[in-house]
Amino acid sequence: MLDLASASWTDVREHIAAGNTIAFLPFGALEQHGPHLPLSTDTIQCAGIAARVAEHFSGLLLPPVPYGETWDNGGFPGTISLSASTVTAICLDIATSATSFGVTTLVIVNGDYGNRAPVHAAARQLSIAGSDAIVLDYPGLVEVGDAIKESPWAAPGLCHADELETSMVLALRPELVHPERYAAAYPELPADFGRRPIRFDTLSPSGVFGDPRPSSALKGEAILSFVVERSIAEVDAHLGAIGAR
Amino acid sequence: MLDLASASWTDVREHIAAGNTIAFLPFGALEQHGPHLPLSTDTIQCAGIAARVAEHFSGLLLPPVPYGETWDNGGFPGTISLSASTVTAICLDIATSATSFGVTTLVIVNGDYGNRAPVHAAARQLSIAGSDAIVLDYPGLVEVGDAIKESPWAAPGLCHADELETSMVLALRPELVHPERYAAAYPELPADFGRRPIRFDTLSPSGVFGDPRPSSALKGEAILSFVVERSIAEVDAHLGAIGAR
Amino acid sequence: MLDLASASWTDVREHIAAGNTIAFLPFGALEQHGPHLPLSTDTIQCAGIAARVAEHFSGLLLPPVPYGETWDNGGFPGTISLSASTVTAICLDIATSATSFGVTTLVIVNGDYGNRAPVHAAARQLSIAGSDAIVLDYPGLVEVGDAIKESPWAAPGLCHADELETSMVLALRPELVHPERYAAAYPELPADFGRRPIRFDTLSPSGVFGDPRPSSALKGEAILSFVVERSIAEVDAHLGAIGAR
Amino acid sequence: MLDLASASWTDVREHIAAGNTIAFLPFGALEQHGPHLPLSTDTIQCAGIAARVAEHFSGLLLPPVPYGETWDNGGFPGTISLSASTVTAICLDIATSATSFGVTTLVIVNGDYGNRAPVHAAARQLSIAGSDAIVLDYPGLVEVGDAIKESPWAAPGLCHADELETSMVLALRPELVHPERYAAAYPELPADFGRRPIRFDTLSPSGVFGDPRPSSALKGEAILSFVVERSIAEVDAHLGAIGAR
Amino acid sequence: MLDLASASWTDVREHIAAGNTIAFLPFGALEQHGPHLPLSTDTIQCAGIAARVAEHFSGLLLPPVPYGETWDNGGFPGTISLSASTVTAICLDIATSATSFGVTTLVIVNGDYGNRAPVHAAARQLSIAGSDAIVLDYPGLVEVGDAIKESPWAAPGLCHADELETSMVLALRPELVHPERYAAAYPELPADFGRRPIRFDTLSPSGVFGDPRPSSALKGEAILSFVVERSIAEVDAHLGAIGAR
Amino acid sequence: MLDLASASWTDVREHIAAGNTIAFLPFGALEQHGPHLPLSTDTIQCAGIAARVAEHFSGLLLPPVPYGETWDNGGFPGTISLSASTVTAICLDIATSATSFGVTTLVIVNGDYGNRAPVHAAARQLSIAGSDAIVLDYPGLVEVGDAIKESPWAAPGLCHADELETSMVLALRPELVHPERYAAAYPELPADFGRRPIRFDTLSPSGVFGDPRPSSALKGEAILSFVVERSIAEVDAHLGAIGAR
Repeated sequence: MLDLASASWTDVREHIAAGNTIAFLPFGALEQHGPHLPLSTDTIQCAGIAARVAEHFSGLLLPPVPYGETWDNGGFPGTISLSASTVTAICLDIATSATSFGVTTLVIVNGDYGNRAPVHAAARQLSIAGSDAIVLDYPGLVEVGDAIKESPWAAPGLCHADELETSMVLALRPELVHPERYAAAYPELPADFGRRPIRFDTLSPSGVFGDPRPSSALKGEAILSFVVERSIAEVDAHLGAIGAR
Repeated sequence: MLDLASASWTDVREHIAAGNTIAFLPFGALEQHGPHLPLSTDTIQCAGIAARVAEHFSGLLLPPVPYGETWDNGGFPGTISLSASTVTAICLDIATSATSFGVTTLVIVNGDYGNRAPVHAAARQLSIAGSDAIVLDYPGLVEVGDAIKESPWAAPGLCHADELETSMVLALRPELVHPERYAAAYPELPADFGRRPIRFDTLSPSGVFGDPRPSSALKGEAILSFVVERSIAEVDAHLGAIGAR
Repeated sequence: MLDLASASWTDVREHIAAGNTIAFLPFGALEQHGPHLPLSTDTIQCAGIAARVAEHFSGLLLPPVPYGETWDNGGFPGTISLSASTVTAICLDIATSATSFGVTTLVIVNGDYGNRAPVHAAARQLSIAGSDAIVLDYPGLVEVGDAIKESPWAAPGLCHADELETSMVLALRPELVHPERYAAAYPELPADFGRRPIRFDTLSPSGVFGDPRPSSALKGEAILSFVVERSIAEVDAHLGAIGAR
Repeated sequence: MLDLASASWTDVREHIAAGNTIAFLPFGALEQHGPHLPLSTDTIQCAGIAARVAEHFSGLLLPPVPYGETWDNGGFPGTISLSASTVTAICLDIATSATSFGVTTLVIVNGDYGNRAPVHAAARQLSIAGSDAIVLDYPGLVEVGDAIKESPWAAPGLCHADELETSMVLALRPELVHPERYAAAYPELPADFGRRPIRFDTLSPSGVFGDPRPSSALKGEAILSFVVERSIAEVDAHLGAIGAR
Repeated sequence: MLDLASASWTDVREHIAAGNTIAFLPFGALEQHGPHLPLSTDTIQCAGIAARVAEHFSGLLLPPVPYGETWDNGGFPGTISLSASTVTAICLDIATSATSFGVTTLVIVNGDYGNRAPVHAAARQLSIAGSDAIVLDYPGLVEVGDAIKESPWAAPGLCHADELETSMVLALRPELVHPERYAAAYPELPADFGRRPIRFDTLSPSGVFGDPRPSSALKGEAILSFVVERSIAEVDAHLGAIGAR
Repeated sequence: MLDLASASWTDVREHIAAGNTIAFLPFGALEQHGPHLPLSTDTIQCAGIAARVAEHFSGLLLPPVPYGETWDNGGFPGTISLSASTVTAICLDIATSATSFGVTTLVIVNGDYGNRAPVHAAARQLSIAGSDAIVLDYPGLVEVGDAIKESPWAAPGLCHADELETSMVLALRPELVHPERYAAAYPELPADFGRRPIRFDTLSPSGVFGDPRPSSALKGEAILSFVVERSIAEVDAHLGAIGAR
């Protein structure tokens, strides 16, 4: 794996000349994650996963984009939300440059729910234009969450600043977690939750959806490993399908 | 100073409630800097300067944008260039969110030549719309370069991966510098250099414009201190002019 | 229910004055559906469902948009694909006008897979701007398909011009179905199917994914009834959540 | 003639293989037409005319677009107006797809005054880009109106929900006409009528401009026949001019 | 009348303070007009007419825009064509500024056929947004041409670099006319001329459509006077209609 | 030199056939210049300089664009400001047409500070796309101003309607200058002047920055000559660098 932030251009030239032409782009967010997690939680998680998947494929690791679309969390100080069109434009621009120096597949490792629509739109545009791009949305996360979490989900598949996310940050950047601020929150959700945009601050004053208290770095590591494994499988399936493996 | 990447939203709320409402956005690039410096050189430099200036003003430090407009360096593997409109959009989106939670002045600390036009365009749009924003373009850099550099400039005010830039990275992230790869380059420049876009790879095969050999962390520290001081003065002048200080 | 295509403006004025302010917009497509189904299959289906749901709510039924985003089916003569931005623009324009004469909730009844991203983007934009809009994507279709279909799915949840779709058109517009052309097709799908755009003509020469032979109008009616019921429940949940019921 | 809404993709393939490569796109509107005519009046008329012209040329009949630009009628409940740029985008997208499967000439049969500028803009863009497209704006309508109408025009060439339009709907969809609501209206028009946009509701409270009372299906049929004949002549002239006939 | 190109800002302030708030914008073109007329023919004509109409209304005369949309004449060296969207943008920007300092009505005096669609689009947008704007397209030109021209039209209403246009330039800028190059041209026009974009160089090698030989300054003066008179009447009608006179 | 406004298309054809393929585009503004100078001051100056430089190179002189981006002067009646995107679009459109008939280098002679960013953006886009374009921003103006001006600058390099600008208009269009209105103004400038957009009317009620009283046509001529000389040198350097001379 080659970390482009640390590498020189000659390092990139050599890495690509050796046949390593898959690039991984972690797309994060600066978004509230309760009083106990850092605003960069999504960026930390997707960058951590991308690094491991890139390692497996001897790929090129692009620097994580530290901002994303996160209107839902807009009511909390510190949340910065890009518009959807900006998220798409960033992906397209990066892909264009990467293709120009030999990248053959761009894997966008998405770390934020709000980014989904715009990064998929970018990947679709790129694919249609003949430039290979796919998106990973934490494959296996719900499955591993079901297996490992001791606290209930805030809603089926919904977790934010809860046991699952807190555990991942404990595994990756423990110094940024404030256990002394842990507090569970199980907001009552409207019946149509997930089918229209709702500002989270109208639902949960703390920004938490779930219970961070049973979190641990060990659990975080298990979650990350599982998602990494599934991510590798998805990339492998894709490379096989397009005849690149 | 509050580093937003590490802070929780409640930390931001408190910091702003205490009257600290200036935010600093380092805007970097992923751009070739010769065989001996990392692609993230511009990001490292502007993030380092922004952190110190933010410290002085007890400001909010936004995560650095690790990509910028850098068409000129496009011929080197590893260089990723955003289009100018994307750079402008990123600034506008970030400013909109920041204003929504109480930021009163956005200071864009620009680390890349190609970003100049699009970040200034953003700042202009924001100011005209009534949202205070200014840009710092390494004030004092040429002056301190003249004083400290032992090697000549590649051209008046032109330095790239040279003694000046290498010294700054030595001061900030020495582990990313490869002194064993140091090699000077003084490309012949066309008579109209700077007045039309030119791909740097047609001028300097290594990507270097200047001589990195006399670099040192001590020099880098001196350069950074000077630019930080001048940056503080510029921000102070601005705050005074708009009646915010 | 008031069908706007047939109504005069004075009819609309009275209907709204009587408190009926929910509008239903069927968004279809002109898209290949094998040799035995009409190109307007998606439009027929979503218009049929929208009419019944509108009936339940005494709503306003807007004329179906007969074109949608359907790049995937672009390899078959007769398929017309709008770009995603056009689909979004149509929704936004219609919502703006509808709001101007008293519509309080716009329900987009989506009939085409490719429309999903752009109609959801429109609904999101509208909601964020304070104009109430939701999307129905055939709720319950997979569930009722599992219960009723005798032939297997082409892939989990994937059906195109198969028993399920053919049955619905038999229930709604039997004169447009050619049973003499029925032919099953179970194309081998790439391992990453659904995670990147693929032209369907590279997978299924006939455009069929599944088996139309066990279709019947009775089954179609059962499928439609189930989806209508679930659609009504979704709209009810939404109206309750926003305090409109 | 092949009606694409009812045809399968294999039908289209055969029709085109037989050399029938002209497509007809009726572009209508959902727009107030007084208390006695349906909102879809323009769509009914242009679809009716397009079908007959397509029949003459053994062409492909595209489904009518049931919405158009109609800001002028915006003050009446039920009127839905697309923005001009959306109308243009719809035409361009449809033309792109149609060209991809073998259509050589796209004839836009325009049914709404407000659509004129944006559909002509689309046709112009297409022609300049090398894709053949022309627009028909009811050729001969004023001439035949002069010959057949018993009631006066609301202004030279101006008719809306009057004898002329009502007669055409009586000929095409009599069940949608309410003769019991017929009422003439001859609003006083400003001296600069037609040279700036004016909301019709500020001129005619009923939305009628003219007198529907002398309408009849027979007259409608005569009007349609004349416009169809002239439309055929225009298409013939065009095909001859570009060497396609 | 106040000519803004020559006036100082204080002159404008006084003129507006005196109640003269109508502004006239001549929109010309740089477009071939045969071998005997200058490329700025359209600009000269519309500027000349605008000055006289502005004189009548004691209006503000804006500097003529010397470029317009003229794709049709693109095959001739020297023709510069703006895209339609640029023409519209210029009008909108100018109107915004003019309104800001007290202009109440903007009269666009259009001098080029290709500008028609985009300047009308601008005027429509402005009017809808509540800013008063109208377009004059040489009212009465065909009528006076019929009365004065001795040579036949190239087609009904079609004249380009002919007796009519040459006479107007002889009246306004005789020193720019080359009588020694006069040569008539009556190109055969395709049957669908005017209904699709055609490059004029494919029709007339000289760029002339008509006969410049019977031209005279006297005729030009008569033509201009008539068009000015009609233009004044149109503006008067408009001002009356909107209650400004 | 060939002045396109006065030339016929055949004149352009010949001029280009003779190998004269450089075109000069003066980009001016309609902008307040105090009570004693005309609103078209910038247009007059850049057109005058462009004509002389074009003369030296036997180039094609395009008609000056009489409007530019000048938000800063927006508070004064008569100032018309184009948006930056419109300025860029005008340059791109003109360059596209000019290239189509044989222009090989487009030299934009910029006459207005606000135009700088958008015309440079256009030139950059054109160069990147392979179409040669450069911008001249009055090279040498500050140097010659330092040498000739008797009155002090309003700030280093800042002059507006002062001795320098007034002298140039006296040299080019003396009949448009009002010496009886001369009045000096040395507004106090904010400490961050030049680093954020400021409306000039908040600084100088008269719009003057400097002292017009010592102006003379002789000085104006000297200033113009110097700037023309430097402009020629810049163009020469550029042509040499790209191998065109």
